[in-house]
Amino acid sequence: MIGYGFMGRAHSNAFRKVGNFFDLKYQPVLQAACGRDEAKVKAFAERWGYQSYETNWRKLIARDDIDVIDICAPNDMHPKMAIAAAEAGKMILCEKPLARNGAEGEKMVQAVQKAGVPNMVWYNYRRVPAVTLAYNLIQEGRLGRVFHYRAKFLQDWTISPDLPQGGAALWRLDAKVAGSGVTGDLLAHCIDTAIWLNGPIDKVCAMTETFIKQRKHNLTGKVQRVGIDDACAFLARFKNGSLATFESTRYARGHKALYTFEINGEHASIAWDLHDLHRLEYFDHRDEGKIRGWRSIHVTDHGGDHPYMDKWWVPGLQIGYEHSFVHQVADFINSLDTDQPAQPTFRDALETQYVCDAVLQSAKTGKWEKVKHVK
Amino acid sequence: MIGYGFMGRAHSNAFRKVGNFFDLKYQPVLQAACGRDEAKVKAFAERWGYQSYETNWRKLIARDDIDVIDICAPNDMHPKMAIAAAEAGKMILCEKPLARNGAEGEKMVQAVQKAGVPNMVWYNYRRVPAVTLAYNLIQEGRLGRVFHYRAKFLQDWTISPDLPQGGAALWRLDAKVAGSGVTGDLLAHCIDTAIWLNGPIDKVCAMTETFIKQRKHNLTGKVQRVGIDDACAFLARFKNGSLATFESTRYARGHKALYTFEINGEHASIAWDLHDLHRLEYFDHRDEGKIRGWRSIHVTDHGGDHPYMDKWWVPGLQIGYEHSFVHQVADFINSLDTDQPAQPTFRDALETQYVCDAVLQSAKTGKWEKVKHVK
Amino acid sequence: MIGYGFMGRAHSNAFRKVGNFFDLKYQPVLQAACGRDEAKVKAFAERWGYQSYETNWRKLIARDDIDVIDICAPNDMHPKMAIAAAEAGKMILCEKPLARNGAEGEKMVQAVQKAGVPNMVWYNYRRVPAVTLAYNLIQEGRLGRVFHYRAKFLQDWTISPDLPQGGAALWRLDAKVAGSGVTGDLLAHCIDTAIWLNGPIDKVCAMTETFIKQRKHNLTGKVQRVGIDDACAFLARFKNGSLATFESTRYARGHKALYTFEINGEHASIAWDLHDLHRLEYFDHRDEGKIRGWRSIHVTDHGGDHPYMDKWWVPGLQIGYEHSFVHQVADFINSLDTDQPAQPTFRDALETQYVCDAVLQSAKTGKWEKVKHVK
Amino acid sequence: MIGYGFMGRAHSNAFRKVGNFFDLKYQPVLQAACGRDEAKVKAFAERWGYQSYETNWRKLIARDDIDVIDICAPNDMHPKMAIAAAEAGKMILCEKPLARNGAEGEKMVQAVQKAGVPNMVWYNYRRVPAVTLAYNLIQEGRLGRVFHYRAKFLQDWTISPDLPQGGAALWRLDAKVAGSGVTGDLLAHCIDTAIWLNGPIDKVCAMTETFIKQRKHNLTGKVQRVGIDDACAFLARFKNGSLATFESTRYARGHKALYTFEINGEHASIAWDLHDLHRLEYFDHRDEGKIRGWRSIHVTDHGGDHPYMDKWWVPGLQIGYEHSFVHQVADFINSLDTDQPAQPTFRDALETQYVCDAVLQSAKTGKWEKVKHVK
Repeated sequence: MIGYGFMGRAHSNAFRKVGNFFDLKYQPVLQAACGRDEAKVKAFAERWGYQSYETNWRKLIARDDIDVIDICAPNDMHPKMAIAAAEAGKMILCEKPLARNGAEGEKMVQAVQKAGVPNMVWYNYRRVPAVTLAYNLIQEGRLGRVFHYRAKFLQDWTISPDLPQGGAALWRLDAKVAGSGVTGDLLAHCIDTAIWLNGPIDKVCAMTETFIKQRKHNLTGKVQRVGIDDACAFLARFKNGSLATFESTRYARGHKALYTFEINGEHASIAWDLHDLHRLEYFDHRDEGKIRGWRSIHVTDHGGDHPYMDKWWVPGLQIGYEHSFVHQVADFINSLDTDQPAQPTFRDALETQYVCDAVLQSAKTGKWEKVKHVK
Repeated sequence: MIGYGFMGRAHSNAFRKVGNFFDLKYQPVLQAACGRDEAKVKAFAERWGYQSYETNWRKLIARDDIDVIDICAPNDMHPKMAIAAAEAGKMILCEKPLARNGAEGEKMVQAVQKAGVPNMVWYNYRRVPAVTLAYNLIQEGRLGRVFHYRAKFLQDWTISPDLPQGGAALWRLDAKVAGSGVTGDLLAHCIDTAIWLNGPIDKVCAMTETFIKQRKHNLTGKVQRVGIDDACAFLARFKNGSLATFESTRYARGHKALYTFEINGEHASIAWDLHDLHRLEYFDHRDEGKIRGWRSIHVTDHGGDHPYMDKWWVPGLQIGYEHSFVHQVADFINSLDTDQPAQPTFRDALETQYVCDAVLQSAKTGKWEKVKHVK
Repeated sequence: MIGYGFMGRAHSNAFRKVGNFFDLKYQPVLQAACGRDEAKVKAFAERWGYQSYETNWRKLIARDDIDVIDICAPNDMHPKMAIAAAEAGKMILCEKPLARNGAEGEKMVQAVQKAGVPNMVWYNYRRVPAVTLAYNLIQEGRLGRVFHYRAKFLQDWTISPDLPQGGAALWRLDAKVAGSGVTGDLLAHCIDTAIWLNGPIDKVCAMTETFIKQRKHNLTGKVQRVGIDDACAFLARFKNGSLATFESTRYARGHKALYTFEINGEHASIAWDLHDLHRLEYFDHRDEGKIRGWRSIHVTDHGGDHPYMDKWWVPGLQIGYEHSFVHQVADFINSLDTDQPAQPTFRDALETQYVCDAVLQSAKTGKWEKVKHVK
Repeated sequence: MIGYGFMGRAHSNAFRKVGNFFDLKYQPVLQAACGRDEAKVKAFAERWGYQSYETNWRKLIARDDIDVIDICAPNDMHPKMAIAAAEAGKMILCEKPLARNGAEGEKMVQAVQKAGVPNMVWYNYRRVPAVTLAYNLIQEGRLGRVFHYRAKFLQDWTISPDLPQGGAALWRLDAKVAGSGVTGDLLAHCIDTAIWLNGPIDKVCAMTETFIKQRKHNLTGKVQRVGIDDACAFLARFKNGSLATFESTRYARGHKALYTFEINGEHASIAWDLHDLHRLEYFDHRDEGKIRGWRSIHVTDHGGDHPYMDKWWVPGLQIGYEHSFVHQVADFINSLDTDQPAQPTFRDALETQYVCDAVLQSAKTGKWEKVKHVK
């Protein structure tokens, strides 16, 4: 485990509890945690039961007693860490987004492909049971031809002009480290789900905005130009002919982490939101007219009906955010020794990176931009 | 039309517009309005297009040019007006509740039966399209055996101790005039719907409370004991074996007119509330497991699917409270010359009165009370 | 009244009932209805209480006993009818959109300005009490600086490829008559509200789609190319610096008339939707942290708190779609003899037309287009 | 840990993860699991990391290396296990309900009081952050005088007549083992919360029903009379003068575990439900009239605003059912060495037992029954 922040905790929790709930081929062992601040990484390792710690990630990767490297460091560190880990023959789990841009991502994909190591990116929302259920319904062809896709990811945590940028927990506000603002942080989630549910995106037309132009930078102590996008919205056309709108912002009062998507098909529509992640809204026009309506599915049932839920409690009792990570670990472990790699791989995540690239490019050019695809 | 208050307006509006939207056998003609205060009744008649007015209801009833008497006077006036109108051979529409108690109601039923005149009580919520749809679904047997019924009618308008009781618009707070408090005013609605949807009630066990014991009486100008029930809750057993809870209050902060009911059957459940009266919630356990959920039916569709709605606008555009009265007028007019009287008749409404009597009696005795039934 | 379709009914209902509920300077008199089909217009006139009827609109406009012309004919008829009515010195109410495009609209604005006649366009959603309340809250400065605006208008009634285009009730599907598809029909509503609530739009970038390329035309009987846009989405930048997304379609399963908007300001956010039009959602970040949340305001209160609602029933009892027209008539009549014309005037509606023009142009060019403004 | 069923898992999960998220005085060590079936208890111990296992609970209690006994066995075992554990000087955590009835509960209370050992009952819903927030708001006096309390716990899992009763996972359906049906299982939760939030209950009037009279018993293999209550509803009066309705059933289609409560006070009202446990609904009449509405509080904020939530993820990301147990363990551990025992103690839970006794008695007598109180 490299990193001991928010994601370091979320992943550690998943590693620790997955074996209690899922039948696994292999049990994860928390061998070592790694971070630059020795006091902090030591405390982290103790709290979460890691058997050792390192302050140099290259040393961690060099260790023989470690099979899997989990990268929870800031985005700019992903390529070098992932490439080194691949070269060392380690399996790699990498926090999303894959990288700051497609060019970096390509190198990472090449590295894992060359090394032939299992790899996966933590686009965890695919494993929210309601989202997986949406995927299953689509795979069964219930929607028919798809006309519309729309997704938003709304937050409100950077509205205050007093919030500094950069450094430690605020690296997501530093364009050099993060690569971009909401595009790579939030829209990347929306895009990953969208491609998974609705196929490749052909072209996009975007606008971005930085509402607060200057903020104090925590590392330099100076007031500096803000390089990230505070908000980004784009139009898109999918390969399947459907139209889409995507939007993300950190300036939407009233929304802490409101990731929502809706898909409208010829026969049925699906909607979901992260603030009530245990529910899926489903409308089927083939229902009898007088009792046709949006169904609010409380995704907590057992018996194979609702993905993953038979592993948890009893019907009606909801799970939360953290469980999506547990599911992802379970799927990753159980994919080993099979020829079906757990999704999304680095390669899958590179597709998302290309869409982000096109979005940011379009915001600059003011034109529609074609999306590059992984060969 | 006797009375020019809230209900006088609601009914007049219904009479005026029903012909614009419904195909009717007969067109209502607003012949005369009647009220004690000449200035007020004259203004009311002019505003609503009544061709004349009276200040003495006995004179109104005596007029030859009038076929239907609509009673919107306070509850204590219902029996004498209805009986006189029946004796004069008029058709009678009476605002709910039928009377202050069952004994009064019995005399009214006898009078209309003896006179053989069409009669109806304005339990208007039966004609909210979503409620009529609920009735239709139940009639089709979709629920199977019914286990539970629960209804509430919550308001918050009498919490202030400064509110006086009695007189004019406040007659509902005067036990002598109204007969009771929330039981006759609000629970009567709940009971009428419940009997319609779920059949006769066998026995009840109730509690009532008057939270503010004394209020200034507007007619006497003195602070007097409050005679009405501010709140009433009761348990009930229906003849079909289902269990019920009913509750009403004018002391529930946050609810202006929240009439809700829910019915749980062996196969399906139904729920509705007056604050969003254009929606019906429906759950059918026979739905396929993975897409089973409460359906929020936006009751605005045409094509025979949603009762009454083809008369109004286009799908998706909601109607409101007042339309339930229009529907009731249409049904009443179109029931004439048929052998199917429009529901609920005085006789139907007497059943509700008997339940109210048993409820109030039980609140006094602290025991379960059997409900009397119309022979 | 010219036209006896859906809008002819909605307006007639408003004229008939406005005086029952509102105190007016002048009472509307239903003098004449006009339509080409004599049998139909006669029946319409009788049903709605029009005192006469005409089959030639020029004759109607020529009549001396008529003060106001209400245009509910298809869009392509708006300019010539409005210009003729203005020249005859009539007050004019015109159904939305003002015209098929800005050029036509300009001529109409010139005509009414030259004639000096009161004029108004039926963008009725401004007068839904919840929407007027939103306007009032914004006018009071509660939102602070606005960052985001988003609006959608989703329907699903043209998904079937068997639906023909053009003729009678289907003229909205005929590009020559309607001018455009969802852009002029649905987005025009969204744009009108947006400009009213959030000020002028500077530039837009749009995409449109016609999912079903050919349909039988009802007038020719032949299968022909479909000229209208079935769906349209666009990005926009407002003059006040806020970013917007707009979307409309008739291919969104599960939505009959789901017009929604949301505005995110520095301090507060507002959201509304037409399927539950009697509610306004409001979030205020200045609320105390532990009880901060989206407030679902049931816009039915009296006492000046909720616009228009003191004219109707009692708190808690909702009104519906039709009432927005009643409010608009009341506002129009009461604006006469004042120097505050009722909104939106032809001039206001021309602004919306210019946005529609830019949207359709951008969908063709694939570029951002500047919006023209009324001088 | 005695028991390895649903609750054995829920508690074990809490013990395992509490130290990762909370700062604790003491760390729980999973010393031993105990169950009658050796193969099962062994597998359970291995899966959850218990260092040993026992098949005889008396041996477990006799062990010197164990400080705390957690009783997750069926209800009929609670008294003897708890009393033995108390006599052995162990701290005791007991799954709810405390016992099958008040008489048994009294002996348990006496035992722990005599032994002076810390003790707690797992009424976990108190520690759902939204429920704790409700408690805090009430403690701050925000509601004013309370008029109404209503609670329901609705399930639908026993509707099928083919479901057997008794034995293993179905012991809740066996009156001898469970003591009662929904009263002790579900209403006990509602009553515990109610007393905590609204104070002591004075008297109750109840009805119960067993819809399916006979079921096959899994232990005897015979079709036998069903002894438990399938449904129970009761009216209640609290000591503070408020009126209440309570209802529970396992025959409510559409509800898996819908525990809901609502409290109406003079100034404000609160509502919550278990199917969306991360939200609290709050209405404050003191809010400005035009923006007054029910607030949907997404209880995920940090900064001390929302109980327990600063220990978990970031604002907007919800937790689920299992976290209530983690919170209870944290509170228990941190209460040690203080003079504030963690709530609810055996003594607190005995109050709930007395209410259950009065409810079941009233269902038999058909009369109001006074509730006994702990001296």
